[in-house]
Amino acid sequence: MSSSSAPLKIVVIGGSAAGPKAAARARRLDEHASITLIQKDPDLSMASCGYPYYIGGVFDDRNQLICTPAGIVRDPNFFEKAKRIEALVLTEAVAIDRAAKTVTCRHLPSGETRVIPYDRLVIATGATPLFPQVPGTDLAGIHTLHSLGDADQLRAIRDQGQVRRAVVVGGGLIGFEVCEALHLAGIQTTVIEKTDCILPFLDPDLARLVANHVRANGADIITGNGVAAFLGEHGRLTAVKLGNGTELPCELAVVAVGVRPNIALAQAAGLTIGEQGGIAVDDYMRTSDPDIYAAGDCVECTSLITGRKVRAPYGDIANLQGRVIGQNLIQPETATFPGITHTGICKIFDYTVGITGLSARQARALDFDIETATVAGLDIPGYMHGQLLISLMVAERGSGRVLGFQCIGPGDASKRVATVAMAIRGGLTVEDLGNADLPYAPPYSLALDHVIVSAHVLENKLRGLMHGVSAAEVKQRVDSGADCFIIDTRSPQEFEEMRLGIGETLIPQGALRGRLNELPADKDREIILYCKISLRGYESAAILQAHGWRNVKVMEGGVMAWPYPREK
Amino acid sequence: MSSSSAPLKIVVIGGSAAGPKAAARARRLDEHASITLIQKDPDLSMASCGYPYYIGGVFDDRNQLICTPAGIVRDPNFFEKAKRIEALVLTEAVAIDRAAKTVTCRHLPSGETRVIPYDRLVIATGATPLFPQVPGTDLAGIHTLHSLGDADQLRAIRDQGQVRRAVVVGGGLIGFEVCEALHLAGIQTTVIEKTDCILPFLDPDLARLVANHVRANGADIITGNGVAAFLGEHGRLTAVKLGNGTELPCELAVVAVGVRPNIALAQAAGLTIGEQGGIAVDDYMRTSDPDIYAAGDCVECTSLITGRKVRAPYGDIANLQGRVIGQNLIQPETATFPGITHTGICKIFDYTVGITGLSARQARALDFDIETATVAGLDIPGYMHGQLLISLMVAERGSGRVLGFQCIGPGDASKRVATVAMAIRGGLTVEDLGNADLPYAPPYSLALDHVIVSAHVLENKLRGLMHGVSAAEVKQRVDSGADCFIIDTRSPQEFEEMRLGIGETLIPQGALRGRLNELPADKDREIILYCKISLRGYESAAILQAHGWRNVKVMEGGVMAWPYPREK
Ligand SMILES: Cc1cc2nc3c(=O)[nH]c(=O)nc-3n(C[C@H](O)[C@H](O)[C@H](O)COP(=O)(O)OP(=O)(O)OC[C@H]3O[C@@H](n4cnc5c(N)ncnc54)[C@H](O)[C@@H]3O)c2cc1C
Ligand SMILES: Cc1cc2nc3c(=O)[nH]c(=O)nc-3n(C[C@H](O)[C@H](O)[C@H](O)COP(=O)(O)OP(=O)(O)OC[C@H]3O[C@@H](n4cnc5c(N)ncnc54)[C@H](O)[C@@H]3O)c2cc1C
Ligand SMILES: CC(C)(COP(=O)(O)OP(=O)(O)OC[C@H]1O[C@@H](n2cnc3c(N)ncnc32)[C@H](O)[C@@H]1OP(=O)(O)O)[C@@H](O)C(=O)NCCC(=O)NCCS
Ligand SMILES: CC(C)(COP(=O)(O)OP(=O)(O)OC[C@H]1O[C@@H](n2cnc3c(N)ncnc32)[C@H](O)[C@@H]1OP(=O)(O)O)[C@@H](O)C(=O)NCCC(=O)NCCS
Ligand SMILES: [Ca+2]
Ligand SMILES: [Ca+2]
Repeated sequence: MSSSSAPLKIVVIGGSAAGPKAAARARRLDEHASITLIQKDPDLSMASCGYPYYIGGVFDDRNQLICTPAGIVRDPNFFEKAKRIEALVLTEAVAIDRAAKTVTCRHLPSGETRVIPYDRLVIATGATPLFPQVPGTDLAGIHTLHSLGDADQLRAIRDQGQVRRAVVVGGGLIGFEVCEALHLAGIQTTVIEKTDCILPFLDPDLARLVANHVRANGADIITGNGVAAFLGEHGRLTAVKLGNGTELPCELAVVAVGVRPNIALAQAAGLTIGEQGGIAVDDYMRTSDPDIYAAGDCVECTSLITGRKVRAPYGDIANLQGRVIGQNLIQPETATFPGITHTGICKIFDYTVGITGLSARQARALDFDIETATVAGLDIPGYMHGQLLISLMVAERGSGRVLGFQCIGPGDASKRVATVAMAIRGGLTVEDLGNADLPYAPPYSLALDHVIVSAHVLENKLRGLMHGVSAAEVKQRVDSGADCFIIDTRSPQEFEEMRLGIGETLIPQGALRGRLNELPADKDREIILYCKISLRGYESAAILQAHGWRNVKVMEGGVMAWPYPREK
Repeated sequence: MSSSSAPLKIVVIGGSAAGPKAAARARRLDEHASITLIQKDPDLSMASCGYPYYIGGVFDDRNQLICTPAGIVRDPNFFEKAKRIEALVLTEAVAIDRAAKTVTCRHLPSGETRVIPYDRLVIATGATPLFPQVPGTDLAGIHTLHSLGDADQLRAIRDQGQVRRAVVVGGGLIGFEVCEALHLAGIQTTVIEKTDCILPFLDPDLARLVANHVRANGADIITGNGVAAFLGEHGRLTAVKLGNGTELPCELAVVAVGVRPNIALAQAAGLTIGEQGGIAVDDYMRTSDPDIYAAGDCVECTSLITGRKVRAPYGDIANLQGRVIGQNLIQPETATFPGITHTGICKIFDYTVGITGLSARQARALDFDIETATVAGLDIPGYMHGQLLISLMVAERGSGRVLGFQCIGPGDASKRVATVAMAIRGGLTVEDLGNADLPYAPPYSLALDHVIVSAHVLENKLRGLMHGVSAAEVKQRVDSGADCFIIDTRSPQEFEEMRLGIGETLIPQGALRGRLNELPADKDREIILYCKISLRGYESAAILQAHGWRNVKVMEGGVMAWPYPREK
């Protein structure tokens, strides 16, 4: 925009992540535009993702949630001075008039309304936490964690130290971040999850391992049970009642069962809403009205893996989309946001839990013909104090394209998820990933990094060199008394220290060739092998296959990925 | 191979990384082949990359360098039992007869020779450390670090505690790993480097920052000076004499000036040697003789970025190539190693120093038309105790393809290098990377990860939105008294605590719009802006450009990437 033409009038609704990012980028590209940010909340630019760490006491200065890296609070004065953006806080946009190109907004404390004209409008209204429709939701002591106000309240509960027991309703990412925060605050916490498994984006075996870790840290989990009612006395919460009738006494409940996009304003203005319930946008992040853009938790976008529309209510995505809008506001159709690859992560006690792409369950539900590999291994060498990682990689048969990767454990899973996220973004195959030139030195990885080994194991399965069986499948065989021959291929010493006790026979891998006579005479009998991580299990399987056994399987991930109780 | 046909005879020369990997993979694919491993060294499967950590005392059990994750030493007995591979140690292959298809080898202790027939042969003879041709190299006290024997000697020196001063000849990855190890061992260490800059794969400004970090840790560095002679008394080293005549008194010198591929055997057998001095191989890792494969430090391979032949003497590459051979030995032409992306990393005191792809210097030397961006920023949010990263991203103009990424600092650079390595492998552009869906949560990254911000800054430069100038260029301007106007855009408080003192004017970014009158009247005068990391510098530049200044530049990386002395 040359300074001679009339300044472009930009209005942005929503002042947390996507909105300010769009506004800030637009300002950098056009110093002369008039930019107004309308924000219902009292604060601006809140790092919502940091709330759990503030609540848990990882840091104590609330301003760190709303300040720049240089320590300046991002209040209206900052936006005015640093960005020349007029930020109206405690101000709600109540209507969009697309014909007149105006937004009507109301200053919440005074009730005054104001009509603001726009040339281009951005909707970044975010999402609203879902809430179960059960009795008792108006009791004191029931919270969500969405706004900075919510975070303030939960932090105050921590600082007051009165609450002893809490129930977190919902076993997703935010549920477990809250669980950890409350646990750090000294509160005995139980997470309840309606479906059979926590963290529904993970495949069940991995989710079970995370659940074990949470329990080992002293928090509790109940699955397959939703909240039936909140019970209380004198208007205060005293217990959460579950679907099966159990009552969990508690003074605090935090509901974290997901969010729904805030589309009311857009809908009232006649903008198209997509099939996933978010505002529909094209790759320029433009709504059905070419002068109106939308980004963040309120929109739906494209999955680069499935090509379908999805919702991706994540802070990084909100910022990326906001930036694309900021550019298109000033230089139309010069920036695109092609889509997401379903990448997310969270810290749960000493575990990192990350995923990129599709889980096996999701991929199957979408009718992909897939193969998977579950792999356990260290992140860096043992002599550098390596930590365990357990991952599950998913690829499409035929093409070999990597479709997904889950990675959990005390090891550095975040690096591995980031690595595979880029591989998926680049459309790479299992074979490409298995030949990747990654940064190797002992402080950072094994000579063949965990993602490379995962690709190798998956490649072996795709080539029919290894036949896998999951811990869950083995458990089922054992519980149903199935006629399979189970071999632990570790050393006697390892067997003495820890073992599954599922009817296994100990035959160390190095001794196997000399003990083939101890194996089933029936060469079609199912033989299941494993070791600590199932590397020796795999080598042993190759030996048996070469000697004519036709039904040889490796229990993937070995003892390390066994999520059920062990004999010792 | 069906068990009815005669077993395939496989011979592998070299028993450290590539050789055993090829042998082990071949065994898994063919239980019946006869596999012989010929190894000159007394040990097998040595984790050479771990030597510096053993020498430095990060761990004390030498066996950890040669054992499996389950703790079993990989000696000939292990290879026999676990892999059914005959491993001949202290045995040197002395000739290959391609017509007769035999290898002659000599048992070093006894001098006995043996002729071993092969159907398929693998050459994995590794490399030999280079050594400067100067007087005095036969003095006691001069070492290299290549074999486990070398590591034993240096570890003994640490344990004996007699050496006080050491000189490391060569400022590459291994030189600095040795430097750190000796420093940990309590030895005052100086690294000398012939060229002007340490770590020649880095661009100079980043290399200077690493040098500062090394010096801050108490080790010394001398650049632009090679070794002229080793000086000694009574056959023992007493000093290293440099090209400029300086004598550095020391009782120990470790030479680490690179390696040359061991090609003598291959050459004598008439196999083709490539333009880079390594054994020439195709994508199947097959030499010019279709029955002979080669892998690891002794070969040259293809750069996936330039398409040219390169040497890549890295442990991960040796293993990847070995595995490809292992498969092709049994199932010819089913596995390929397409090439490398120049990825490497090392730890230098509290810094990680990593690179993938080309440095700016390399890219220019190869005639790529490039743009670069130097970016400083945190790895994770400040409230989660984020640490600094400084990186330099290189992209091709026009296509926008990412060509390279260097990343250094106390922050988690290894993750960022791995991420960009995959992006390069996938042929992604700066724009793709700037829209990447990475795993974001506060314990793991900023909402927009450092690699994404790096891509954004580079994109801004490619779009002409930001004009950069490097610290080195600014220093040159300042030293030569050039007529430029330098603005520090931080706060007065930050300025008080730390500042460059290069004639800069302090104008905080938030105040700039009100102080335009203090800027040069001549709108063509060069203005250079910066802040702590140059984010505010960039925002300020946008303001000035919008107000008509035509020669506005941002000093990339800001104060954090300034490698020269500061006023305070
Ligand atoms: C506890 C918690 C932890 C999280 N952790 C992570 C994480 O680790 N990683 C991750 O990627 N994501 C995480 N998220 C999600 C992330 O915070 C959101 O995806 C992101 O904030 C979405 O940004 P947004 O700008 O679209 O919406 P919001 O941040 O929700 O901002 C929308 C703003 O719009 C305002 N608004 C709404 N309607 C109106 C109106 N009519 N008029 C004026 N203003 C209006 C609201 O006041 C609100 O401030 C977390 C979220 C929470 C709550
Ligand atoms: C101190 C140090 C640190 C390193 N750090 C890293 C790092 O952090 N990251 C990284 O990626 N790489 C690193 N490397 C490089 C890595 O170790 C090598 O790239 C890798 O070992 C090469 O494997 P190779 O099998 O090709 O050769 P080598 O490991 O050298 O093995 C070759 C073997 O062949 C034997 N041999 C040679 N000729 C004959 C013959 N005629 N007959 C019989 N045997 C023979 C030798 O005895 C030797 O054991 C490091 C190397 C060293 C020395
Ligand atoms: C911060 C916020 C207001 C956006 O403002 P912003 O000015 O675009 O953001 P930043 O200050 O991070 O970056 C500014 C610019 O500096 C650039 N930059 C960053 N580091 C740089 C460096 N070292 N050198 C040069 N430029 C740099 C960035 O690329 C960006 O420019 P561009 O978008 O024009 O390419 C918005 O993201 C926000 O409100 N965030 C907090 C809330 C949030 O993200 N919540 C969800 C997750 S918890
Ligand atoms: C170890 C060495 C002998 C190779 O032997 P190897 O048997 O191929 O190596 P590993 O024991 O790591 O892996 C064995 C196999 O188990 C597989 N595997 C690993 N983890 C597994 C798991 N959790 N489940 C199933 N399979 C697994 C691997 O994919 C590999 O099989 P493949 O190559 O057939 O796909 C060789 O790499 C070596 O000598 N290394 C040490 C020296 C070295 O690397 N030095 C340079 C760097 S310091
Ligand atoms: Ca993400
Ligand atoms: Ca590498």
